[in-house]
Amino acid sequence: MIRKILIANRGEIAIRIIRACREMGIETVAVYSEADREALHTQLADEAVCIGPAAAKDSYLNMEQIISATIITGADAIHPGFGFLSENSQFAKLCEACHITFIGPDSDIIARLGNKAVARQTMVDAGVPVIPGCQKALTDVKEALEIAKEIGFPVIVKAVLGGGGKGMRVAYTEEEFENAFLMAQKESGLAFGDESMYLEHFVENPRHIEFQILADNYGNVIHLGERDCSVQRNHQKVIEESPSAAVDEELRERMGKAAVLAAKAAGYKNAGTIEFLLEKDKSFYFMEMNTRIQVEHPVTEWVTGIDLIKAQIRIADGEKLKWKQEDIQITGHAIECRINAEDPSKNFRPCPGRITDMYLPGGKGVRIDSAIYSGCEVSPYYDSMITKLIVFAATRKEAIAKMHRALGEVIIEGITTNIDFLYEIMERPDYQEGDFTIQYLEKVLEEMGENK
Amino acid sequence: MIRKILIANRGEIAIRIIRACREMGIETVAVYSEADREALHTQLADEAVCIGPAAAKDSYLNMEQIISATIITGADAIHPGFGFLSENSQFAKLCEACHITFIGPDSDIIARLGNKAVARQTMVDAGVPVIPGCQKALTDVKEALEIAKEIGFPVIVKAVLGGGGKGMRVAYTEEEFENAFLMAQKESGLAFGDESMYLEHFVENPRHIEFQILADNYGNVIHLGERDCSVQRNHQKVIEESPSAAVDEELRERMGKAAVLAAKAAGYKNAGTIEFLLEKDKSFYFMEMNTRIQVEHPVTEWVTGIDLIKAQIRIADGEKLKWKQEDIQITGHAIECRINAEDPSKNFRPCPGRITDMYLPGGKGVRIDSAIYSGCEVSPYYDSMITKLIVFAATRKEAIAKMHRALGEVIIEGITTNIDFLYEIMERPDYQEGDFTIQYLEKVLEEMGENK
Repeated sequence: MIRKILIANRGEIAIRIIRACREMGIETVAVYSEADREALHTQLADEAVCIGPAAAKDSYLNMEQIISATIITGADAIHPGFGFLSENSQFAKLCEACHITFIGPDSDIIARLGNKAVARQTMVDAGVPVIPGCQKALTDVKEALEIAKEIGFPVIVKAVLGGGGKGMRVAYTEEEFENAFLMAQKESGLAFGDESMYLEHFVENPRHIEFQILADNYGNVIHLGERDCSVQRNHQKVIEESPSAAVDEELRERMGKAAVLAAKAAGYKNAGTIEFLLEKDKSFYFMEMNTRIQVEHPVTEWVTGIDLIKAQIRIADGEKLKWKQEDIQITGHAIECRINAEDPSKNFRPCPGRITDMYLPGGKGVRIDSAIYSGCEVSPYYDSMITKLIVFAATRKEAIAKMHRALGEVIIEGITTNIDFLYEIMERPDYQEGDFTIQYLEKVLEEMGENK
Repeated sequence: MIRKILIANRGEIAIRIIRACREMGIETVAVYSEADREALHTQLADEAVCIGPAAAKDSYLNMEQIISATIITGADAIHPGFGFLSENSQFAKLCEACHITFIGPDSDIIARLGNKAVARQTMVDAGVPVIPGCQKALTDVKEALEIAKEIGFPVIVKAVLGGGGKGMRVAYTEEEFENAFLMAQKESGLAFGDESMYLEHFVENPRHIEFQILADNYGNVIHLGERDCSVQRNHQKVIEESPSAAVDEELRERMGKAAVLAAKAAGYKNAGTIEFLLEKDKSFYFMEMNTRIQVEHPVTEWVTGIDLIKAQIRIADGEKLKWKQEDIQITGHAIECRINAEDPSKNFRPCPGRITDMYLPGGKGVRIDSAIYSGCEVSPYYDSMITKLIVFAATRKEAIAKMHRALGEVIIEGITTNIDFLYEIMERPDYQEGDFTIQYLEKVLEEMGENK
């Protein structure tokens, strides 16, 4: 029985988890870096332990310190949130060895799905559609070119240990290939300490559609519908919604079945996400499985009514899923905007600093997941996302109107944010019509540049 | 077609209406008193017109100024909110004469339902259960005593033009009667300029259960389930919820039918509320009909999914109701706490002043309807309610846990509020079990006093 959870994270997701725990009567332990002494998660948890200097590698990525803090405070479990150690199989394994419940799947499942080539083969074996490509780990550019020709251009080069858009390059022709491969390889070496690459046919202008999965320890797996996360910049999601304007009931059932199949094939446990690329002709391909809670989980929570963090904790505590697939109803429409401390006019460079004044909107159908307060310091050490604004309404059109109204009310002074940029997107007819792919923001930014 | 609405109100309800309008693409005009120059509603509306000095009678109750502001700004309609002119039939009539759409029922319906004796007779004629009593307007205490004896003690004396708990007294015996009658009469004279009283059998320890009604201009009337507003202090609601722990499906259907019957009998249009007293044996009595939006409307919005302010505007604009009774589903459980600038340790006396720092909670299932911001002045001239905190969860138990968690996060510095008091109520087993009547807070306050 989980009675006390250590939250190995910071920012709004740490707050999100503290809130869920408090509502469940579970005690919370925050960990914080020296830069986060005044952070909201440090203040809000029942206990808080400093785990090291500001740099993430010395604090939020410091496994030994986090495990020590868990043992010292007598916490039974660790919730890793997203980012940091959330998909680190070594950390999950360390928890297992120390008899601490890691709120997520087993370490071997994380390891298997974290390796893209292995994950892909698992899906191929299970009959889940994957993008035509070569799963072999490649380091030699000559060999890679031969394989690229077999797959057919355009081809995308990806790092085996990659993520977050790093170690990725597209080659549209044979001529472009060598340069693309070497660049991606170099990036991967720097970011992940590994130069193994793999190749895939590059799906042009798809939508990013992902399915939320819940799986208990007894083989029960359900999906909670899709999220459309096509509005991205440099592979970083900016606006997410559920349901997708491009997914009808028939497609939802087809993709949902594939997602459940994928999770079952991986022997998956706890909450996870199957990411697909969806083409205009409604064919879809497995991209990857994220073995953690996602930033954009609130949109699914709102259209299904299910609290995903509480579900994660209950599953980790050995509870059986209380829903069957037929119990899951998608009602209304939810949209999330990520409010970042960044300057859209300066290529979205991060803008940390002190928030001198603040007003966040409220009212019917508005949810704020945030870690900021008036007077707080937005740290330069961590991710620039400071607040998630989530809205819900009966229809997509009404949800957009609500997001537009809510964004219009936000006041964050002292730092620069992307609020005006998000506000402008809500006003665009193409966004309003649901007419976008993962290339959408590139086009928008070009148009905005031209209009200046 | 309504294109521009003047909001004849202030505080959180003015913000609530501005938000609904903005989402509907309707322009807004705020009116403000000299004390409200910096108020959030003044800042948030598309236009704002100063209508007079701080005292409500010179500004928010100043009909001529408000009508002038409407004409000058070219607004088509007025939303009166609650309080102030919202149930003033003379004001509604003035709007009608000036061809301004009053968002609410016709002036003659307001007049009829605002007169308690007439309202009661309407219900008696329609077959809606009412409390045994005498509807005759009484001014003579001797005559009143004779009638009180006929009705049977305990008896409650009420002002014909009363409301908000003013001009009301209970007499348990013949001996107490004269004093009770004269006190109530005096209060009524001061508050409403009228000394006509009426008598009713006093229902001991009932619950306050009210039904939300929507009625269009074409005779279609539906109810949206009940709200339990039993947690009151001096007839002022403090905590409201939907559904009620005391109302089962069978009773909901019975009371709902009576509520629809009551609204139809009154020829009602727009949103309204039928207030009932509910006894332990499940008998219920019509108390009054409120011909406006209620403070506690968000709990109904959350369990039904219907935006009541938007529904009000659409009905006033001549739209037909888009729901039939069978479309209305009550899902989950919602609770509202009224956060007031008042000091519970000093008999809840109002505590206006400047808010020097503020943090309001967020996250899944939390809604904030508020007009405050960090640095704002809470005026001594108006109602002490500064924020409504509304939560929603799958069950009543989870909703209470969520309210407890959310109240625990609130920080309002610079003024005294009732937050700790509300927090303590959430922790009480009797509240948690739904075991309360309209006398509940009296008991709670006695116990709190004894524990000091």
